[in-house]
Amino acid sequence: MSATAGTGQNPLFPRIFGQEAAGVGEGVTELKPGDHVLPVFTGECKECAHYSPLMANPFTILLGLPPSVSTPWFMLVILPRSNPLAPLDKVCVLICGISTGLGATLNVAKPTKSSTVAVFGLGAVGLAAAEGARIARASRIIGVDVDPSRFEEGNYGDTTSHSKVIELQIALLLRFFYSTFPSRKFGVTEFVNPEDHKKPVQVLMEMTNGGVDRSAECNGNIDAMISAFECVHDGWEVAVLVGVPHKDAVFKTRPINVLNERILKGTFFGNHKLHTDLPLVVEKYMNKELELEKLITHSTTFSEMNKAFEYMLKGESLRCTIPMEE
Amino acid sequence: MSATAGTGQNPLFPRIFGQEAAGVGEGVTELKPGDHVLPVFTGECKECAHYSPLMANPFTILLGLPPSVSTPWFMLVILPRSNPLAPLDKVCVLICGISTGLGATLNVAKPTKSSTVAVFGLGAVGLAAAEGARIARASRIIGVDVDPSRFEEGNYGDTTSHSKVIELQIALLLRFFYSTFPSRKFGVTEFVNPEDHKKPVQVLMEMTNGGVDRSAECNGNIDAMISAFECVHDGWEVAVLVGVPHKDAVFKTRPINVLNERILKGTFFGNHKLHTDLPLVVEKYMNKELELEKLITHSTTFSEMNKAFEYMLKGESLRCTIPMEE
Repeated sequence: MSATAGTGQNPLFPRIFGQEAAGVGEGVTELKPGDHVLPVFTGECKECAHYSPLMANPFTILLGLPPSVSTPWFMLVILPRSNPLAPLDKVCVLICGISTGLGATLNVAKPTKSSTVAVFGLGAVGLAAAEGARIARASRIIGVDVDPSRFEEGNYGDTTSHSKVIELQIALLLRFFYSTFPSRKFGVTEFVNPEDHKKPVQVLMEMTNGGVDRSAECNGNIDAMISAFECVHDGWEVAVLVGVPHKDAVFKTRPINVLNERILKGTFFGNHKLHTDLPLVVEKYMNKELELEKLITHSTTFSEMNKAFEYMLKGESLRCTIPMEE
Repeated sequence: MSATAGTGQNPLFPRIFGQEAAGVGEGVTELKPGDHVLPVFTGECKECAHYSPLMANPFTILLGLPPSVSTPWFMLVILPRSNPLAPLDKVCVLICGISTGLGATLNVAKPTKSSTVAVFGLGAVGLAAAEGARIARASRIIGVDVDPSRFEEGNYGDTTSHSKVIELQIALLLRFFYSTFPSRKFGVTEFVNPEDHKKPVQVLMEMTNGGVDRSAECNGNIDAMISAFECVHDGWEVAVLVGVPHKDAVFKTRPINVLNERILKGTFFGNHKLHTDLPLVVEKYMNKELELEKLITHSTTFSEMNKAFEYMLKGESLRCTIPMEE
């Protein structure tokens, strides 16, 4: 959204819209006609100092500058080889936000079976982060969003309760259901609407005996970013920032929150390296570990592709794809 | 200093001054008369949820409240068994800041042989952090301090050069010497005085091809904390906050600095667990890996112990001990 509308980002030109491959030029030796490929906005050269997917200076990406301004790597056409049976109209959604959210929990926050995970922002990226926590079999997944309709996406239909006692009972009940049916929806067991509370961080701390074990901010709202950091338990628990903030936003916290041994991380593409990791994510989908279909809520046709933008702008869809012709 | 003078901390009472053992009470089964022990301000119960040395709520420590206000753990007399040959007038300095600085690099930042490490604040804690980086054989250790006399403590006598070319030459030269004589002083290879530069972070980035690999802030100055975070290279490099800040200080940074995959950590006692880890630090000293004597710059007698405060208040000493009678 913000990338296309420019909201809160530096509206500099030249700017590249969309993420689209434009054919394969000379010197490409790793691909042959018919290979299934995914075009991704970042690369993996296996040569530079970065051991993360941060190949190009992400400032150039956020500013919308062509990558050639700061790097010789062309971020739009570096293509991973993938499972040849993978349906492209499904795995195409892995090229950006879904892999980012999924990796934010699976690769960066790394919850364990006993972890309580808070996910701030229940859009596609946040729900992919919840899906990552579900795959990691986190014991509790708490969704945080100001839009109550998002709650329906994330869980079994229960919405937040403002009584702590009831909250706890629902949590225990849902945890039981969750352990029985670990694959249901995105596995979100509890909800908090920050607009319902003066101090949402305190609510999360009270729900979790002092703080969550892992959190992921998938919205880009600066207050949510700060809350996501401050709601993790002291003593080496981890908060991961994912959402792209307004360009003027400032992250502010009391240093004691850091000194109390909270870890703050940020992630770019969920720490998935293009060639090394993305084919493995496709494999996760193929072996039914990753339930990608939950995130593809709408479909359209090539001639009516603008509908996808309408769904997105209205907040109706998570992802909209164009089904492949049989 | 700030703990005794109350500078920048909440001057609440009751407040406990110093860190002193007061004998062993009933029910102690792990110690016998003559055991060498170190009194430490934090505990390790091996039962609670914390997998860090953060046993008591550190707020109570920073506020100077007795630990019993928030925790049943009495932080002054939990004693680790240690090497029986260890000289107590040396290893006594391990009970607080020195272990904190040492662990900030060795246990938390974890530099490797190829790492460039920046240490902000070259007091005893910062020099202990440099010592940790030296033990980890970091390739470059950059000291950052506003007091040029501190530079002498940290290195071989060279002070900062403001010409980038000369800086690089000195760095290479010192790195050569460092590799030849890895045990010389604290191993600091280069220096930056932040007061000599408008943008010290940029200076550090230029010296290190985009940012240091690890940094440790050992001063408590909020600007140094922010610089320590922002000067690490993007892409999973690590900044560790150690210094205790002014109570009103606020850590501020643009979220993009986090999203660019810098990791921010804080540490409490260098992540040393009392019973598990502290005896191993004593071992590091006994096998001459850790050169503790460099940090003990002064000595005094029991009857003149106030001299130790004078040395400290004048900034003359790193640590002052009372030698044991023969």
